[in-house]
Amino acid sequence: MSAEDQTVNFTHDEREALYKTIFNRRDVRGEFKPDPIPDEVLARILKAAHHAPSVGFMQPWNFMLVRSKTVRQQVQEAFTDANNEAMEMFPDNKKPLYQSLKLEGILDSPLNLVVTCDRQRGGPVVLGRTHIKSMDLNSTVCAVQNLWLAARAENVGIGWVSIFDQDRVKAILGIPEHVVPVAYLCMGYVSEFKVKPELESKGWRERLPLEDLIYFDQWQQQNREDSLIKVISDQPEV
Amino acid sequence: MSAEDQTVNFTHDEREALYKTIFNRRDVRGEFKPDPIPDEVLARILKAAHHAPSVGFMQPWNFMLVRSKTVRQQVQEAFTDANNEAMEMFPDNKKPLYQSLKLEGILDSPLNLVVTCDRQRGGPVVLGRTHIKSMDLNSTVCAVQNLWLAARAENVGIGWVSIFDQDRVKAILGIPEHVVPVAYLCMGYVSEFKVKPELESKGWRERLPLEDLIYFDQWQQQNREDSLIKVISDQPEV
Repeated sequence: MSAEDQTVNFTHDEREALYKTIFNRRDVRGEFKPDPIPDEVLARILKAAHHAPSVGFMQPWNFMLVRSKTVRQQVQEAFTDANNEAMEMFPDNKKPLYQSLKLEGILDSPLNLVVTCDRQRGGPVVLGRTHIKSMDLNSTVCAVQNLWLAARAENVGIGWVSIFDQDRVKAILGIPEHVVPVAYLCMGYVSEFKVKPELESKGWRERLPLEDLIYFDQWQQQNREDSLIKVISDQPEV
Repeated sequence: MSAEDQTVNFTHDEREALYKTIFNRRDVRGEFKPDPIPDEVLARILKAAHHAPSVGFMQPWNFMLVRSKTVRQQVQEAFTDANNEAMEMFPDNKKPLYQSLKLEGILDSPLNLVVTCDRQRGGPVVLGRTHIKSMDLNSTVCAVQNLWLAARAENVGIGWVSIFDQDRVKAILGIPEHVVPVAYLCMGYVSEFKVKPELESKGWRERLPLEDLIYFDQWQQQNREDSLIKVISDQPEV
């Protein structure tokens, strides 16, 4: 059997399943149900994360499961303090909408999960990270996105909480200096997955036209006559 | 119809398709074929990237398609210079293996794609990015991982090149100061997708046991008796 024969190929239906997952993934804040996630489901989701690409096969991630109510209450306090600061940063015409948005499900969700990046894993020199030191953080985010998609396909919602002082949350979780808590996630089954991103449906910001974001060979070099751009412009909205 | 009725659910086969994509995704360097990627396929892959999560719905990404051979030659020169520097950083016993690895397909692949992050998009204050400024970079990496998985399900290979001086590549592509070229990707059809990551099969590093990477509530707090850990330990290797 040649190498080519061994290669795993994908059917039309399998591709469509991936796209369905990507287009229906949401950042969940307000729809968590308290039902626990079965071990088998969580194990599959974590395994998907662990099979993310990583620079130099560094696998810099850890997965911290935060079940403790006490710990989660401390994180929610850190969120509340930061969110009050955040609100003040917006122009007055945006403040009422900002205040009306629910931006975390730390205590509503049955599980919090912190995906961290150990910047010392793999020793002082890591293949592929010799010139761009942030590649380990990038690998960790790839794991987060795998995890997010796997959760969606398991009908489990995830919300990424990013409004807090990172050092305060590190102290709460006992995370040492050389480790970055890349993503603080709330996880659980949900009453619904929204049809569109909430910030889009509530008028915070609009989805940008994909064709405007594509350049050729040089920054800001667009080409409306390119056949790819025509295909993209003709794609139906999701 | 209640909200719950509207929610899109996933079948067993759809979940399995996602996991198949995740487990069979590879970083491709040496197996590119010159065949061009049809516009319809590339359009679907880019749309998948554009539907990544983004902080404050910022959508900070652009997609630079690098088709020009001249531009790609300049990038490959930047790679070669950096890779020579990189080799010197490894201990002597690792140097021969490092030198034997093919780490880019810049000119072998039919297309290079740069996914960038515009750090000024969305104005001075972005929802969810008030306290952790790197959230826009994280969003961009989520788009890269969506793109990578979509490509795999389209049987298109992707290799992420990270060994070069970032400022030099920015200059080659005319990328301004406030924009980060987060990922420089080589894309194309391939003669094969490897069964395992190349760095694993060639003995550069081993895959870490997932159960060792899981902590509970506090950093480094493990629990071998936890039922989740038992389920994970019993999972078959991919």
